[in-house]
Amino acid sequence: MDLKYVSIIGSTGSIGTQTLDIARAHREQLKVCALAAGAKNIPLLCEQIKEFAPTLIAVPDQSCREQVQSFVKAHKLAPKEIVIGEEGLIAVAEHDEATVLVTAVVGFMGVKPTLAAIRKGKIIALANKETMVAAGHLVVEMAAQHKATIVPVDSEHSAIFQSLLPSLEKGAVQQEVEKILLTGSGGPFRTWSKEQMGSATISDALKHPNWSMGAKITIDSATLMNKGLEVIEARWLFNLPVEKIQVVIHPQSILHSAVEFVDGSIVGQMGLPDMRLPIHYALFYPDRVASQRVPRLSLSAIRALTFEEPDLERFPCLALAREAAAVDDSKACVLNGANEIVVDSFLKGEIKFADIPRNLERVLDEHKPIKSPTLEDILECDRWARQRARLVMTA
Amino acid sequence: MDLKYVSIIGSTGSIGTQTLDIARAHREQLKVCALAAGAKNIPLLCEQIKEFAPTLIAVPDQSCREQVQSFVKAHKLAPKEIVIGEEGLIAVAEHDEATVLVTAVVGFMGVKPTLAAIRKGKIIALANKETMVAAGHLVVEMAAQHKATIVPVDSEHSAIFQSLLPSLEKGAVQQEVEKILLTGSGGPFRTWSKEQMGSATISDALKHPNWSMGAKITIDSATLMNKGLEVIEARWLFNLPVEKIQVVIHPQSILHSAVEFVDGSIVGQMGLPDMRLPIHYALFYPDRVASQRVPRLSLSAIRALTFEEPDLERFPCLALAREAAAVDDSKACVLNGANEIVVDSFLKGEIKFADIPRNLERVLDEHKPIKSPTLEDILECDRWARQRARLVMTA
Repeated sequence: MDLKYVSIIGSTGSIGTQTLDIARAHREQLKVCALAAGAKNIPLLCEQIKEFAPTLIAVPDQSCREQVQSFVKAHKLAPKEIVIGEEGLIAVAEHDEATVLVTAVVGFMGVKPTLAAIRKGKIIALANKETMVAAGHLVVEMAAQHKATIVPVDSEHSAIFQSLLPSLEKGAVQQEVEKILLTGSGGPFRTWSKEQMGSATISDALKHPNWSMGAKITIDSATLMNKGLEVIEARWLFNLPVEKIQVVIHPQSILHSAVEFVDGSIVGQMGLPDMRLPIHYALFYPDRVASQRVPRLSLSAIRALTFEEPDLERFPCLALAREAAAVDDSKACVLNGANEIVVDSFLKGEIKFADIPRNLERVLDEHKPIKSPTLEDILECDRWARQRARLVMTA
Repeated sequence: MDLKYVSIIGSTGSIGTQTLDIARAHREQLKVCALAAGAKNIPLLCEQIKEFAPTLIAVPDQSCREQVQSFVKAHKLAPKEIVIGEEGLIAVAEHDEATVLVTAVVGFMGVKPTLAAIRKGKIIALANKETMVAAGHLVVEMAAQHKATIVPVDSEHSAIFQSLLPSLEKGAVQQEVEKILLTGSGGPFRTWSKEQMGSATISDALKHPNWSMGAKITIDSATLMNKGLEVIEARWLFNLPVEKIQVVIHPQSILHSAVEFVDGSIVGQMGLPDMRLPIHYALFYPDRVASQRVPRLSLSAIRALTFEEPDLERFPCLALAREAAAVDDSKACVLNGANEIVVDSFLKGEIKFADIPRNLERVLDEHKPIKSPTLEDILECDRWARQRARLVMTA
């Protein structure tokens, strides 16, 4: 097998570090050539630079750049190209040597570098769901134009991708797929009453039953907004209308999602809840390579797999997202932008759990949707949504 | 979609009638051109001839032929070519017009017509597991040589086929598959003690929890010989050693089987326990066509999916089959031939349930295995096994 060259945007986050864990276990097969990280954990980025020796680094600002530079000097590492700001993210995304770009940043800033990598025809291992949520129609169009392959890294979308691969490869998803069964654990509040959820604390909401993830995504799992954003993402990734995407609550998080074909056959992908499985799959796609870091599921060791329908009344965020997914306009982008701000506000203890959907609804109500938005429209809608979300919360 | 022409061997049995049920619901897409049936239900065969108007018919003997001929005359149907005996089965298998041959006979007599259809490069919708059990190495070799595709119609093997299709299509099953997870309900005696099983009656053994099938297969499900024969069948169909084929007891029969890839990902196929699903899939392969006759599974409507390891001590037939599958010789053929006779004897009330494995073991102990047997060797071993089984039971 040829050596695969990998760039990572968001190398110090949850997905980024797990990607590097896989690269560490597959040194003969994977070479890390570029890393981008935020300002929060520059010491970890420095350790990654020392260990994986990428030639290109991206950091948010000059101060971070200086920290990295002095680390490189102090450890007598080979000189690095260090680019800052959005330009840095795009440089990593476009890195000439890389065949795969892992976009592992959380939030809206993944859009521009993802589009840049698509233009270069790279394989995108996409862990940044906001890219597909906010700019799905642009991404899909551009990916088709540049023959770039998007392999989802979300465990659910990876499961769907693996399950409908034969249809995908012959371009027959629309004819052959009856519906997507997008599974979700139901989050920490699955069995809570509406009243209990009203007084849920930050620490209640952060107690995810099966997955260890970042704080923002964990809150999104508690509101089921995460599942809602995944519905929107699936709509674009697999080019299916929202009516064909059904959310199924599956508390054990073993069946990562499934596809029901028009003939009634359901094909699904299973595994232990561990992000290294979809990351590993995306890094090596289209091949299946023996994994060193993916824990194995034993079917006979699990007690039982159960399934439920989601309760849209207790989880209004899922209903909001489904509504936004039903139309091809700027609503999904606004929902996503406002959600980041509102969740951040909840994490800071400024609003209650039940205020999350209320505030989102207020922002959405004030938004005048733009049909088939351009990238500029999206950026503007995102900016407006964030500003508006801050405003409605202080009003 | 082009019209597909279908021949069926065993049209009046369980799989045969369900195949015709699908053909009935898809008249625009499927045309039945040849039918072969046994002597047991000539009136049903005649009804099928009237309804589907095949041009070629095969029946076991002259008496059956006369019955069909007088029916054709009495109903003023277009004249039919009616061939008798093994020659008839082969004529149906080789029918010029047919693109798909459904081999739905139970037992060893499926081997010769299957090989004949392979030689003609047809798609084989294979429901006759004994063909792969007894002559797997010959079938696989000949299918490769004549570029014939074998699409299994067993629900388990169809599930495996659907789950590993991407690897199958790129010829990478050996590199990419860690193991096959072959599921089975565990049959009516799953929770019975060894003592209880010792005194099980014919009617106890015929009470299969999930599947409605013929008597012979239902008994094989009670002994788990069915699962054992499926292990042998999977070994040849997917060209994997027996160590890579794991039997998993799954009482609900919803996950029809799964594949664990080398990267730790498990892909499986689910549905309600209804043979029309794998039959439909095989008839339309490689396309997925909207089904009219396949009942739909709703994940949220099922209570729970559970999994257990099989108990080889209570089910010695499974152990016998795994042993036979481990070597490429005539043992599997002997096991299969002897099993047909021993099960028949149990169904006639001549021996007890616990005598089934005992008698099989006796026959196997007396057999001198032939390495890489020819078709003649197989026919001789099958004949010997049946004769020997009768002898050990009367001794």
